[in-house]
Amino acid sequence: MDLSNEQRAEILVQALPYIQKYYNKIIVIKYGGNAMLNDELKKSVMRDIVLLSLIGIKVVLVHGGGPEISDMLSKTGKESKFIGGLRVTDGETMDIVQMVLSGKINKELVSLINSIGGSAVGLSGIDGALIETKQLCEELGFVGEIVKINSKIITDVLEKGYIPVVSSIGCDSSGNAYNINADTAAAEIASSLKATSFILMTDTIGLLNDKNDVNTLIPRVDIKEAPALIESGIVDGGMLPKVNCCISAVEKGVDSVFIIDGRVPHSILIEVLTDKGIGTMFYKQ
Amino acid sequence: MDLSNEQRAEILVQALPYIQKYYNKIIVIKYGGNAMLNDELKKSVMRDIVLLSLIGIKVVLVHGGGPEISDMLSKTGKESKFIGGLRVTDGETMDIVQMVLSGKINKELVSLINSIGGSAVGLSGIDGALIETKQLCEELGFVGEIVKINSKIITDVLEKGYIPVVSSIGCDSSGNAYNINADTAAAEIASSLKATSFILMTDTIGLLNDKNDVNTLIPRVDIKEAPALIESGIVDGGMLPKVNCCISAVEKGVDSVFIIDGRVPHSILIEVLTDKGIGTMFYKQ
Amino acid sequence: MDLSNEQRAEILVQALPYIQKYYNKIIVIKYGGNAMLNDELKKSVMRDIVLLSLIGIKVVLVHGGGPEISDMLSKTGKESKFIGGLRVTDGETMDIVQMVLSGKINKELVSLINSIGGSAVGLSGIDGALIETKQLCEELGFVGEIVKINSKIITDVLEKGYIPVVSSIGCDSSGNAYNINADTAAAEIASSLKATSFILMTDTIGLLNDKNDVNTLIPRVDIKEAPALIESGIVDGGMLPKVNCCISAVEKGVDSVFIIDGRVPHSILIEVLTDKGIGTMFYKQ
Amino acid sequence: MDLSNEQRAEILVQALPYIQKYYNKIIVIKYGGNAMLNDELKKSVMRDIVLLSLIGIKVVLVHGGGPEISDMLSKTGKESKFIGGLRVTDGETMDIVQMVLSGKINKELVSLINSIGGSAVGLSGIDGALIETKQLCEELGFVGEIVKINSKIITDVLEKGYIPVVSSIGCDSSGNAYNINADTAAAEIASSLKATSFILMTDTIGLLNDKNDVNTLIPRVDIKEAPALIESGIVDGGMLPKVNCCISAVEKGVDSVFIIDGRVPHSILIEVLTDKGIGTMFYKQ
Amino acid sequence: MDLSNEQRAEILVQALPYIQKYYNKIIVIKYGGNAMLNDELKKSVMRDIVLLSLIGIKVVLVHGGGPEISDMLSKTGKESKFIGGLRVTDGETMDIVQMVLSGKINKELVSLINSIGGSAVGLSGIDGALIETKQLCEELGFVGEIVKINSKIITDVLEKGYIPVVSSIGCDSSGNAYNINADTAAAEIASSLKATSFILMTDTIGLLNDKNDVNTLIPRVDIKEAPALIESGIVDGGMLPKVNCCISAVEKGVDSVFIIDGRVPHSILIEVLTDKGIGTMFYKQ
Amino acid sequence: MDLSNEQRAEILVQALPYIQKYYNKIIVIKYGGNAMLNDELKKSVMRDIVLLSLIGIKVVLVHGGGPEISDMLSKTGKESKFIGGLRVTDGETMDIVQMVLSGKINKELVSLINSIGGSAVGLSGIDGALIETKQLCEELGFVGEIVKINSKIITDVLEKGYIPVVSSIGCDSSGNAYNINADTAAAEIASSLKATSFILMTDTIGLLNDKNDVNTLIPRVDIKEAPALIESGIVDGGMLPKVNCCISAVEKGVDSVFIIDGRVPHSILIEVLTDKGIGTMFYKQ
Repeated sequence: MDLSNEQRAEILVQALPYIQKYYNKIIVIKYGGNAMLNDELKKSVMRDIVLLSLIGIKVVLVHGGGPEISDMLSKTGKESKFIGGLRVTDGETMDIVQMVLSGKINKELVSLINSIGGSAVGLSGIDGALIETKQLCEELGFVGEIVKINSKIITDVLEKGYIPVVSSIGCDSSGNAYNINADTAAAEIASSLKATSFILMTDTIGLLNDKNDVNTLIPRVDIKEAPALIESGIVDGGMLPKVNCCISAVEKGVDSVFIIDGRVPHSILIEVLTDKGIGTMFYKQ
Repeated sequence: MDLSNEQRAEILVQALPYIQKYYNKIIVIKYGGNAMLNDELKKSVMRDIVLLSLIGIKVVLVHGGGPEISDMLSKTGKESKFIGGLRVTDGETMDIVQMVLSGKINKELVSLINSIGGSAVGLSGIDGALIETKQLCEELGFVGEIVKINSKIITDVLEKGYIPVVSSIGCDSSGNAYNINADTAAAEIASSLKATSFILMTDTIGLLNDKNDVNTLIPRVDIKEAPALIESGIVDGGMLPKVNCCISAVEKGVDSVFIIDGRVPHSILIEVLTDKGIGTMFYKQ
Repeated sequence: MDLSNEQRAEILVQALPYIQKYYNKIIVIKYGGNAMLNDELKKSVMRDIVLLSLIGIKVVLVHGGGPEISDMLSKTGKESKFIGGLRVTDGETMDIVQMVLSGKINKELVSLINSIGGSAVGLSGIDGALIETKQLCEELGFVGEIVKINSKIITDVLEKGYIPVVSSIGCDSSGNAYNINADTAAAEIASSLKATSFILMTDTIGLLNDKNDVNTLIPRVDIKEAPALIESGIVDGGMLPKVNCCISAVEKGVDSVFIIDGRVPHSILIEVLTDKGIGTMFYKQ
Repeated sequence: MDLSNEQRAEILVQALPYIQKYYNKIIVIKYGGNAMLNDELKKSVMRDIVLLSLIGIKVVLVHGGGPEISDMLSKTGKESKFIGGLRVTDGETMDIVQMVLSGKINKELVSLINSIGGSAVGLSGIDGALIETKQLCEELGFVGEIVKINSKIITDVLEKGYIPVVSSIGCDSSGNAYNINADTAAAEIASSLKATSFILMTDTIGLLNDKNDVNTLIPRVDIKEAPALIESGIVDGGMLPKVNCCISAVEKGVDSVFIIDGRVPHSILIEVLTDKGIGTMFYKQ
Repeated sequence: MDLSNEQRAEILVQALPYIQKYYNKIIVIKYGGNAMLNDELKKSVMRDIVLLSLIGIKVVLVHGGGPEISDMLSKTGKESKFIGGLRVTDGETMDIVQMVLSGKINKELVSLINSIGGSAVGLSGIDGALIETKQLCEELGFVGEIVKINSKIITDVLEKGYIPVVSSIGCDSSGNAYNINADTAAAEIASSLKATSFILMTDTIGLLNDKNDVNTLIPRVDIKEAPALIESGIVDGGMLPKVNCCISAVEKGVDSVFIIDGRVPHSILIEVLTDKGIGTMFYKQ
Repeated sequence: MDLSNEQRAEILVQALPYIQKYYNKIIVIKYGGNAMLNDELKKSVMRDIVLLSLIGIKVVLVHGGGPEISDMLSKTGKESKFIGGLRVTDGETMDIVQMVLSGKINKELVSLINSIGGSAVGLSGIDGALIETKQLCEELGFVGEIVKINSKIITDVLEKGYIPVVSSIGCDSSGNAYNINADTAAAEIASSLKATSFILMTDTIGLLNDKNDVNTLIPRVDIKEAPALIESGIVDGGMLPKVNCCISAVEKGVDSVFIIDGRVPHSILIEVLTDKGIGTMFYKQ
């Protein structure tokens, strides 16, 4: 872009009302998908987060794992069984999951934020007993269901000026770790914090009326209308659990929830700091 | 500008290092000249200030009066005498000066900032005994010289989250008000607050090697070199006292001092939040 | 007075129960009339206020303007029209009103308090958006009606140890300034702060049963009895709006409201710190 | 006194500069002698102290015992021996001393202050290990010498808004209680607190040039001149240790120290809040 | 005990769950009886209290007087009359009571705690007007009934890190002191503080089903069952008022109340920090 | 152990002076070796740490990895080369190291502490940029040397009431992670925090005069004598770097440093809370 400094300043000024709107508010961001795999995008997302943090927004980053877990499992010669789409997680598998999430991905994100000039602290659902979990069903092993969010550790860390980066691991009162769905963990954390916004980064551009036509984006969904969308088949497949997370967060008190396209550079900033969103927003009138 | 939201976001991100640099720091801005007379520019400057305030910079605005004082004096049929370029200020004149500065201009700026969504409080050098003054010389009447800055009222107001807007009126211990030079007042306030930056808005583009050629801007002046510039005649006329203010502020501990062109839209933002300044910077190596 | 030091000490001790009663409580004082015009009285009132402040009472001073506004208008050759007793206030007139109130009277009071050893800060209804106002009616121009008091700026200033001095100027959300009635402004500020007392200084000795007989002072009025007093004609003319202010303040939660005679030296101290009041007190049983 | 309320208010105002001078400062008062024996005077002194406390002065009251100890000793049939003017204090005697000081006089003073509307807490040198003591000499038994003042308990109590009332009992690290001189204890506490003033109430009008002529009061003594006064015999007898306490307090950093006549009603207030003192002031130029 | 350090450490670890249970909670202990008369036991109790304080429990100690009062009365030749088991308390007797309680016993306990390394402050019901009292009946003189507990002074002292030691003296608003029952005072203070536990030290091992058989201890009493116990005669004599104190404290919100045997070394620690209590616990299901 | 509750209480009381000594002080514990491999011992150590935390000691736990890293490397088929006893650490190896340390061991310890009733937060040297590191030498790859400890994150976490558990990973300003020696990391963190004690848990009983005779333990070493011990060969092999860590910590301001035998149950408690240590203490006279 060949812009004069005056033009650059003008653009900063145009962000003013959005900065005012989110000032001192909490935004929970679920980070995952391609935005996490592409190094360029990853750095860009972290830079966006440091920027939001500096202009007075309290950002909480929640991440899952995905392909890196499978890579590590295959490296260690561990084969995975699946029941109903969920990975059967024995003790050894759980160790791998936890190591990849809390030991690798989490620390890489923290490190990246710090190197950009932010100040991050990595947490898992175990630290400060953040995510209390119970076993989903015996067959699946250490696959967990969230029982309660103890958000004190997050508010403590925010209060001290750090950006909390949370890996989606849960624990029960006996000290067992569980693999939990990162979208759900992020939505529950947002609900527990009464966040102003919850942003779910995906690899889609949002809800489409016609899945084959990217020009049919549904920009806003009142959660009253959500059941109809589901019944009609517009929401299905992998989008169904994501949309359910969004609806649940809105119902539990998050003002506005967004499904945005993590593949678009600066999609978070565009959603938060410009005049039009780029994905689908869920809200309650 | 016909920019995509992605391009807009990119520009915000490019401001990140500058935002980090000034985070939680104090910037004192002397506001005056044409930037104060043109309504469009005035609103633009106030918007820039609200933006700086929201991204975590502690902005202190100091203003003078100028033409509005003369207007009011002529309206009331009061004629002015001048000695050595300074207005002889009898009691009645001082009343007019104070009313225009503290009652009109000051409140207009506060009101403008509030209407944009900031939160400002108007002060004069009398409030909290901010600017202690003594008479300069008897012939000039209520023309004052600064004795001491009591900056507690400014830090109190900043701490409570307001933008202080200060009119350049001083007072002595008997309660008399004095007309004081606004550039000097602003520089002394910046020094007393150990501000990170002091920005002096003028109607020039900065120091020029050749006053007739706008392409000869001197972008940076180490204050060691200032005496040579003055001796050579590059600094003269109305610029001389302004440059002296700048030198004094640097000597008293302000990190960097800028003379910028208030006629350029967003000149403050350009100076603070982009990669190249637009005026002349004074510093000490 | 030819008193021994022992007698002087005895008098201080006799004030003890009153000091205890008001300790750490808020008293809002509407200051106006002759007490404001006579320099000796003005100094005396400010000294009383500094004293109250030092013995632990949180004093808020609200003032209007009166004759000084007319003087200034005539000086600038501006003629005033009146509709129903209210001055038609065009933009130019409003500028004069604001300059006299916020730029002259307000700063003089602040300066006087500071020179006595107190620490005051001058505010108008514009600072911190203290007095939100709307236009009363189009014909009157910038004559305003109070919509809401944002008392945060006053409690902030009190908390930092200053005496707030407030000029009765209001503002709307677009940043326009309005002329508002100072008695009403003071009463509304007292209500908003849940002040313990509101003292309205006037040029009368209080409510009289027989307006021609100063010995018929009504010392206490339960606001239940107020309508009867109005109907009977005991309250009329200029006293009617003042009494209505008092009733409104009591109804909105101010414990006790006083109309006192500002022409009597130390009338505030006598009301607050001695065993008998000197004016008319309004209360609710 | 037949004064109008206006005259009363005028007197309050005349105390203003003295109130300002001592605002938020610490004054330690050694209370004893006739002012403690006469019930009327006692109540009057406590009322003075509550008044000083309310107008923002941090008052610390230190008291001894005197005749009440002898009374109690004689009631219990305990006879006292004296060596060099000091009472030989065996364990049983010490119990009586402590009971009278901490159990009777101290609680009476606390109770009196509370009933007047102040809020006092009774302490002895044992509480919070306030007065660390060692044995003066074996023959005298539990007669102690001050080793160190641990003033934290006093500043804690002041900070919470109470008036500390201290009985002059010391303790050693093994938990033994000691009888200590109350004048010395008060002076050391004042020194340790870096009090602004220390007031020593006595049964004399102060230092007299001619002990037989009450018109020869020495109003001010620079401590440099004190040795000469002692040598000349002007200071002798019971006054000598008291004057030594005063000198020591000034030397250790108390701004001004007063010996005043406790028999004069309101002598404390007269000293603190009026334009001329009534006893002898010790100071250091 | 001939234990290895490892065994000692093991015992410390076994106390862990009890330490966790009481962490940062308030325990009020009524201290009296033989535990107060035997010097060895006294020191042991104080050491237990310092230990509880160090492991994060907020301990409040309340004590009465007993035999020492009678001793002192007889020493002074004062004879006591009793009506209905209560001592008729004239002014002179009250002085003795107060001196012994607040001047002797209270300060000895404070001194003992300090010499062990704790930090105690002695209070009576007079300090900070802690125990507001009225006369029980005229015939008994200064025997009081508690009207209200003003617990601010206790929470202030706890907050500053001291152990408050309270003697059971009450006062009325005129400043008169009253003799009050120490068990009742302690129970009321526990109720007012919403203490987690109230421990009443006695010279019995607790409630016995058969008073002649120490093996019939009743370890736990739901306060619903208390009336039946009283009716059956199991609770009678001196235990009756003590049990009533316990019931009242439970009803007013204290979680658990214990009557324990002060003659057993470390009975408090055993009750608080081990797995089985040693007396009778009162609770509400 | 068959002890009465009274005996148990007695033992608690005997720990009192040690609890007082460490109250509110910081102890850094390097945890490793067999105490980390044996599940029973691991749980016991964590219980000791929760106990220390509850009695008011600020415990910081630092751990390394050891055998679990080798296991994981062999599982993934990664072979290790060693230069001078140090593992050559390429990027893939570093990933494994970090995952095992921060993702597995660290979270297990946090989880264990939480399940016992403590409240822990897991950190690595990356979080809050705790351990700034640079490359030791190129050949060794990601083996780091500590440049600076930024202890703010640890004091923040302690202040909020958590036990920080730190894995010994360092990072440089570009965001690269490094493998660092855990003993050194723990010693440097202790120094940076000006800890009162640093405890280094090992698999030896301490320094022995005769390595073959466990009865020749050297209980205390003044660091002045350390060079002689090294020269004499008493300190050699694996003990040499450990002893150097200890000396360095003492030199940088840690009061006392202990090498203790982690194989002995409750060795930490024995060292901290009983009358004789069980290992070798390093100190500076």
